[in-house]
Amino acid sequence: MKTLGVLGGMGPAATFDFCARLTAAMPATRDQDHPRILVDCDPRVPDRNAAQRGEGPSPGAYLAAMARGLRAAGAEVLAMPCNTAHTYRAEIEAAAPGPFVDIIAATTQAALRGGATRVGVLAVDGCLGAGLYQDALVARGARPILLDAPAQAAFMQTVYRIKAGHRGAGERAAMTGFVAALLDAGAAALVAGCTEVGLVLTQADVEAPLVDSLDALVAATIPRLQA
Amino acid sequence: MKTLGVLGGMGPAATFDFCARLTAAMPATRDQDHPRILVDCDPRVPDRNAAQRGEGPSPGAYLAAMARGLRAAGAEVLAMPCNTAHTYRAEIEAAAPGPFVDIIAATTQAALRGGATRVGVLAVDGCLGAGLYQDALVARGARPILLDAPAQAAFMQTVYRIKAGHRGAGERAAMTGFVAALLDAGAAALVAGCTEVGLVLTQADVEAPLVDSLDALVAATIPRLQA
Repeated sequence: MKTLGVLGGMGPAATFDFCARLTAAMPATRDQDHPRILVDCDPRVPDRNAAQRGEGPSPGAYLAAMARGLRAAGAEVLAMPCNTAHTYRAEIEAAAPGPFVDIIAATTQAALRGGATRVGVLAVDGCLGAGLYQDALVARGARPILLDAPAQAAFMQTVYRIKAGHRGAGERAAMTGFVAALLDAGAAALVAGCTEVGLVLTQADVEAPLVDSLDALVAATIPRLQA
Repeated sequence: MKTLGVLGGMGPAATFDFCARLTAAMPATRDQDHPRILVDCDPRVPDRNAAQRGEGPSPGAYLAAMARGLRAAGAEVLAMPCNTAHTYRAEIEAAAPGPFVDIIAATTQAALRGGATRVGVLAVDGCLGAGLYQDALVARGARPILLDAPAQAAFMQTVYRIKAGHRGAGERAAMTGFVAALLDAGAAALVAGCTEVGLVLTQADVEAPLVDSLDALVAATIPRLQA
């Protein structure tokens, strides 16, 4: 099995949630059936949303150096459990060429698998500002449905509360409200395109198909390690 | 804050459970308040219990190389979320000198904090065979209480089921039974001295104070990163 390198820290909870889900999803009956996983969980990666707003340095060079370090340590396949950071995928791949599992592609493909053509997207400002999900959906003939500006602002506040460790009924209720707004606007499937969303919201909370980007990344990563 | 290096893969689920608990326990309100964590989750570490039985190679050299790699990558403090592997702590520290948070010392100190002098120990054969908890408890004036041989054999089977991903009511009931046996034998406090135990058993399941070794390692690690 190939060694996985995880570009992490964006945020730390999502990083280890991804690793735990991957471990749980592996068809393994003993420790030795699991892949080697190298994780660099570095929360000093410059803020992705601030960079998108032009208010902070680009995380690109930092992520490129992280990827080079992981490859040097033996990582054969890279994955990055942060949607927004995929803005810098080209810079990362140029610095550290080799297999890279793209969370945007994995999540978009999973969301369209059931035949939906209008897909609601829960993602942070930096991710939406870079057009990652909009471009991926349009390229596959689907239409992205986004929150309106006031709801998007409230969504951002909820994400920062989750990053600060608040994962209770209040955050879950807020997320359920954002989902309802996207369904009202015509979405037939939903993308949880921010790794913090899945920490409080699951399919059981939502009536339409909900694709958690962390789960989609797990599902896309496992066959790349076995290949 | 200092960078943590995690010697992992023993098993993989416990490794990421430790990282997730550490992240949740950090006094952090945003990503940037967290420490950098480097994880080498390598399930190819030779089997600790087989080595203890004289039926396989020693994991010592493998773990020493892992520790050197983590230090070279920038880890300033090392932690290893596997009790049994602490048999090889001296070999690891000789190869990669520097701060190392000992799970046996952290767990033993936490178990004795409430004044208990008879401490029940749930640990795998390799850990018991190396005398890690027995020596640590006796050195602090306490008496270790162990399962009898048939119960210990059943405990090992339960641990391997948990490693294989079975974490349901059956495994929880089995663990509760082992705890009852230790309490019957006079234990006033309990050590979950195997990282798989905490995946199915929590304090809520046990009437006496239960110290989960992963939680004890988390609590002992955080101040070492802040120092």
